[in-house]
Amino acid sequence: MQQPFQLDRLRVVLVATRNPLNLGAAARAMSNFGVLHLRVVNPFALAFREARSALGPAAEVLANAEEFSTMADAISDCGLVVCTTAFQHREMHHRIHRLDEGVRLIREHLPSGPVAIVFGSEKSGLSNADLSHGQWLMHIPTRGEHLSMNLGQAVAVTLYETVRDARQPAVPQPLAPATAAELERLTAVLLDALAASGYATPANFAATEQKARRLVRRMNLNPHDAEIVLGMLRQILWKLRSRSGDVTR
Amino acid sequence: MQQPFQLDRLRVVLVATRNPLNLGAAARAMSNFGVLHLRVVNPFALAFREARSALGPAAEVLANAEEFSTMADAISDCGLVVCTTAFQHREMHHRIHRLDEGVRLIREHLPSGPVAIVFGSEKSGLSNADLSHGQWLMHIPTRGEHLSMNLGQAVAVTLYETVRDARQPAVPQPLAPATAAELERLTAVLLDALAASGYATPANFAATEQKARRLVRRMNLNPHDAEIVLGMLRQILWKLRSRSGDVTR
Repeated sequence: MQQPFQLDRLRVVLVATRNPLNLGAAARAMSNFGVLHLRVVNPFALAFREARSALGPAAEVLANAEEFSTMADAISDCGLVVCTTAFQHREMHHRIHRLDEGVRLIREHLPSGPVAIVFGSEKSGLSNADLSHGQWLMHIPTRGEHLSMNLGQAVAVTLYETVRDARQPAVPQPLAPATAAELERLTAVLLDALAASGYATPANFAATEQKARRLVRRMNLNPHDAEIVLGMLRQILWKLRSRSGDVTR
Repeated sequence: MQQPFQLDRLRVVLVATRNPLNLGAAARAMSNFGVLHLRVVNPFALAFREARSALGPAAEVLANAEEFSTMADAISDCGLVVCTTAFQHREMHHRIHRLDEGVRLIREHLPSGPVAIVFGSEKSGLSNADLSHGQWLMHIPTRGEHLSMNLGQAVAVTLYETVRDARQPAVPQPLAPATAAELERLTAVLLDALAASGYATPANFAATEQKARRLVRRMNLNPHDAEIVLGMLRQILWKLRSRSGDVTR
């Protein structure tokens, strides 16, 4: 995956995280999507220590994490501060953007400086005091019956959406489709096998030939698949003929 | 969030999941995004019991989860079976789609019947035998340095992407794909024919079985095509056996 230009200016800020597994999961998703700057505000001390001591893919992100005692310090260098919410606040002081719209705005800001995406604690989300540091709220569209996401999963989905439209090279495909000549060779051997088995008869031969040709074209075979099928059919044909040589020859 | 029309036809299949927290996290993300049909194949018994006993938002999805002992049973009613991968396979037998492209194809299929999205175990992903049941692979674009995602996070990101454009109804397709059960029946007859012809031998049988299963899945057959191929193979098999009854029986 090619990195978008200013992903390095993105900061993930976790406020008052309680569960070391969630810290680890958030860091892992960051590593997966190439967002490497983690800032933690007042994490539960034991949780942070435990998460940092864990080995594994998130270790580097956690080792480089910066710790702050106030939200204000954690976001002081950021030109845009986006607070995430499960959308359950009764009082709305902020504009809310759905994740995809929010990400578009974040990407517009990145050229001009660092952007923080802030996630609250598992228990209570972000406090009103925390929210007051943000320009607007961002919300992952979950269903009404079950709005609140797990912290690690919310970070993963948010970063996925942030990175998803970065210019990415196409996924290399295993193989191009088989050529018409390859498919026609295969069709011929299939017809021989159908004739040798009695499926194709002189009376239905023309119709069966068309049916077989259409079928082979619809099968979406690549050259490797075509080769496999050809091998199978040749063996079957050989067996049919060797056992019934007296009849078909 | 508005529910897409046929989200109810989506099945999340977790194969050989080891960690109860991951089962719980997957179920929670399903509940968040309104994808409620969970199927588990050979979960670690203790993990499944522990996850099911947990209270919380995922409880209903887990309580209704269906348990299967084979992948074939878990996906038998599905017309499209999509296997997820961290994209680390050296040998590529399947076409790979990036998550966003894959989701587009899944949404095209939903009007014609159930679709399974299959996730492998935390430790080793899906085996080649598991993969042979799928039509194609789907891959979340993560960075090269750290490809493999946490299971619960992978499920969350996949379902987020699946639901995100929900308001656009998919264009219905002309003909439903063959179900996994139909394709498995076809695979069985193909294997019989390959055995009767000498293509499949006791020495190569397991490998040939996987090769045949993968091949049939890649062929993109609709029920009509599957019926035609089945008819051809049955006639060939009958002929092979009737001519060489002394050898194969």
